[in-house]
This record gives sequence, C-alpha cells and structure tokens, in this order.
Amino acid sequence: MTQRQTLQAALIQQRCTGNPADNLARATAAVEQAATDGARLVVLQELFNTTYFCQTENPACFELAEPVPGPATTALGRLAARLGVVIVAPLFERRAPGLYHNSAAVLDSDGRLAGIYRKMHIPDDPGYYEKFYFTPGDGIWRPIRTRVGHLGVLICWDQWFPEAARLMTLAGADILLYPTAIGWDPGEAPAERTRQQEAWLTVQRAHAIANSLPLLCCNRTGFEPVPGGNVESGIEFWGSSFACGPQGEMLAQAPAGDEAVLMVTLDLGRTEEVRRSWPFLRDRRIDSYGELTARWRD
Amino acid sequence: MTQRQTLQAALIQQRCTGNPADNLARATAAVEQAATDGARLVVLQELFNTTYFCQTENPACFELAEPVPGPATTALGRLAARLGVVIVAPLFERRAPGLYHNSAAVLDSDGRLAGIYRKMHIPDDPGYYEKFYFTPGDGIWRPIRTRVGHLGVLICWDQWFPEAARLMTLAGADILLYPTAIGWDPGEAPAERTRQQEAWLTVQRAHAIANSLPLLCCNRTGFEPVPGGNVESGIEFWGSSFACGPQGEMLAQAPAGDEAVLMVTLDLGRTEEVRRSWPFLRDRRIDSYGELTARWRD
Repeated sequence: MTQRQTLQAALIQQRCTGNPADNLARATAAVEQAATDGARLVVLQELFNTTYFCQTENPACFELAEPVPGPATTALGRLAARLGVVIVAPLFERRAPGLYHNSAAVLDSDGRLAGIYRKMHIPDDPGYYEKFYFTPGDGIWRPIRTRVGHLGVLICWDQWFPEAARLMTLAGADILLYPTAIGWDPGEAPAERTRQQEAWLTVQRAHAIANSLPLLCCNRTGFEPVPGGNVESGIEFWGSSFACGPQGEMLAQAPAGDEAVLMVTLDLGRTEEVRRSWPFLRDRRIDSYGELTARWRD
Repeated sequence: MTQRQTLQAALIQQRCTGNPADNLARATAAVEQAATDGARLVVLQELFNTTYFCQTENPACFELAEPVPGPATTALGRLAARLGVVIVAPLFERRAPGLYHNSAAVLDSDGRLAGIYRKMHIPDDPGYYEKFYFTPGDGIWRPIRTRVGHLGVLICWDQWFPEAARLMTLAGADILLYPTAIGWDPGEAPAERTRQQEAWLTVQRAHAIANSLPLLCCNRTGFEPVPGGNVESGIEFWGSSFACGPQGEMLAQAPAGDEAVLMVTLDLGRTEEVRRSWPFLRDRRIDSYGELTARWRD
C-alpha cells in the first residue's frame, strides 16, 4: 500500500527593505507564525534578507553577501531548533574572497545546516544583472536530506529548465522547491504581464506534472525602485507564491501585491499513487537522451 | 531584425469509426475545408484512420497497419499536392512483417513524403495497451523539413517528457506538434477528470514555454466502447485540441465533445523575439546534464 504521509508547509512571501536586519526580523516573525499554525517546513523567498540588488551592477553590493554558516543561517538554525521546523533560507553567499553565489541554505529542524544549494542557471537581462554577482553553482543536482524529506531546492531562473527538475527527481526529491524573485517592469503592457506570469506558473506546474512531485514556489512581493533611477523605474515583484500537487493541481496561492504566510498541506503519498497511473519514469527513453548535453544539435 | 513569418495551420479533430476508408474520407473532406480556409499546414490526430484499437490486446488488429508509403499516405500525398498544403498524418505503420509502429507521416505540399516520425515513448496502462502493438521508435529526434518549416512531430505519450521537446528544439524545430488520442474512463470522478485534462494542457504549454516555440496539439474526440465490453466501458476522448504560442499563451482551442477544424495563425517570428527576452538556450548548464540518461540516480 502507498504510504500516506502529509506535511504542513508554509511559504513566506515578503516585501524587502534596504535593512537586512529588519528583513531577517520580519522573516523570523513570519516563521514563528507559520510554526504556530502547524508548519513543519518553511520556505523563504530568494535573497530573503536583502532587496533585489541585481537591478544594477554595483560592486558595493558584494558587501551584502555573508558566509554560510554565518550570521543569518546561525540565527535561523537556532530558530529552526527552537520551533522544530525545517527552514529553506535563500541568501547571497560569500563562499570565498571574490566568489559569491545565489544560494539556499537549508536548516534542519534540529538547527543543523542540512545542506546548501547554489543556483545553477544564472540569468542576465535588463534589470536582472545576476551574472555580475553570482558565480554559477557547481553542485550535482542532489536534493537536501532533512527530517521532513528530500528537498529538491532550486532557485528562480532554474524554474525555466526542465532538466533541473528532472535531475532532482531522479536523485530522489520528495518535493520541488523554488524560491524566486520575479516581477514586472512597470512599463510592461498588461497583455505581456499576463503572458509572463502565466508562463511562470505554467512551467513550474509542468515540472510537478512531468515528475509527479508536489512543488512549492515562494516569490517576493512589493515594488523596489532602481537605485539612483527615476521614481517609476524598478521591479514590481508579483508575489503569487503557490503550491501544487503531483498532477500540477493548484493547492494554494498567495495574492500578488501583499505579504503572506501561505499554508499548505502536502500529501507526499500521492506521488507514488500518481506514478502508478502515469508511469513516466518507467518509459523514459534514456537510450536516446544523450544529446541533451549539446548546446545545439547542428 | 526578427523575421516576421506567419503560418496558417489547421487541426482536424475527429470521431473515428471502425471503417478506415470512412475515416480517411472524412479526414480528406476536413483537410479540403482547412485548405479552403487558408491553412498551409494541416495536422491530423494520432492513428487518424482507425479507432483507438489499443483498448484491448487483439492480434487481429495488426491487420489495420499499413506501410509508409502505402495506400493512406499515397492518397494524402496526392491531396497535399492538389491543395498545396503540408499534412501530418499519424497512422498505424507496418514497417516489416511483425514490426509495427505508432507513426506520423508528413506529406509536403508537393505531395512528397517529407519524413516519418515513429513514437518513441510507448505507454501501457489499463485501456491503453500500446506496448503490445507498437515497437518503440528508433529515430534520433530530428524535426521533419517541409516547405512550411521544420516540424518537431511527436506523438501523444511523448507529450509528458520534456526531454523529447527539448531534443526537437535543439535540432532546430520551428513548431512542436502533438497528435494525440487521450480521454477519460467514463467511471472517473469529475475532480480526477479535471486534474488529468489540466495536466495534459499544462505540460504541453510548458514545452512551448521552455523552448520558446509555438505548439499544436490535435486530439481525438468521441466515445469509443471497449470491443466486446459492456456498453458503458470505453474511452471518452476529450478533444480540446489546441494551439499555443512560444510563451504558452493559448491561441485557439476546440471543444471537448465535437469534431472541429481548428484554425490558427502562428507568428513564427515570435520565437526569436521571446528567446531574446528569456534566453533559456543561452543559459542551459550542459556541463551538468549528463545524468539525464540515468534511469535513477541511486
């Protein structure tokens, strides 16, 4: 018989200020609320304790990076142990002098650092100058083992790449998790806004479907102006954090423009049930996938 | 400047009867209508000239297979040349004595057989006993070159595998095409029906998004009883053929329960435009994808 195992999770969708200590304090309060409400897994958004500083290329922003373990993860480790929750904490990591990553530290419910994921796919387009700041991850697509399961932690831009979700799945992920920081250019036409947000939602739901896994996506909210830009220019982060099940079915979704502690109950036993009906893993044509490592099949 | 190139396409969504000649005649009439309405590319559904005989395992059904080139593709080649349209014709192929495929022949607009795709991922679950009938394809994920573009033809179960869409993309597909035959078990609960159909739609839209390609999906409609079963058992094919653009945006959709000649205009220039905004192909981590050829990453 399929094992029935449910997991209460919470997604912390927040606005960020220019004060990391303030962002950490408000995240801490939200984690406490989530734990009180029964969450055993709490997911923070990408770069949770800073603004999205990648809107410009400014060498001074490297000062925002911190080591792991370091002040934020030590504080969150204590919080995790006190509350008995697993915390996914994405932040700007200083790995070595001059070597920085867009990372997610995972604190297990005993406070221990369970593992770290370093963002593998790094975007770079106007307003999202990430290639300046973040060295691409050198990990091997392994889920992070915690007391609530094997967490397939990925970050933002990774969400557009089916390869990432598949590799986490094949390594035994129980859940796919995407902390993100995505939003609209205020000058964007309404139809384009809709297409972008729908695409973002759809591609992630599809990873859940193709891999028969539940998925949690925690996105930033609020408007952040371009440092030194005019008052209208910046990013309007679209929030809309969500959870879906292994058939891509929506389980919960936060609003676009407000902060939220989004609670959801995941039925981890559904994965094997769904895979028995739709056995995609059985039928993958691994004999024919070799050229997925090609840049282009000329 | 991005090349603007539009293409009128038509999806022929039909009910099938036990009479292949009747199915071919009705498909022919629908192709004629589509051409009259301006289509230059016409897509038929999976196994277009037979019922979905895979509801049981019956050796007599191998008699339904025909060679390519053979009677149906010869007739459709003449039709393609007469109307000046490209036709995607999925059918049960007899490749050699005892060697059968679930294939799609593509007839170019001069009537020539442009190429053939043989379904790579073969399902097998109650009511869809395809592994009995169909030898898995031995192709190499190459789009078929035609006068209207490079067609990334895949078939039904392939639609659940992001690997297939990606490999067609990397080999230069201009459009992803999915002839399908999927439906509900009449005994299925309404909530499960919704989840299944939504998953089917979502996963395909996501292939369009992840690869920045337009996508055409042509599905069968109508109820087909299980041969020799009681009157209620069978498959209620859910139609709902659709077209979406390179951001997964829906362009057109047919009803669930009726036949349709679904017309859509594709803007092939949008692919490069979208890829410039969301350059996924630039950022794929091909150095790290090697284990996509693993069955499981133990």
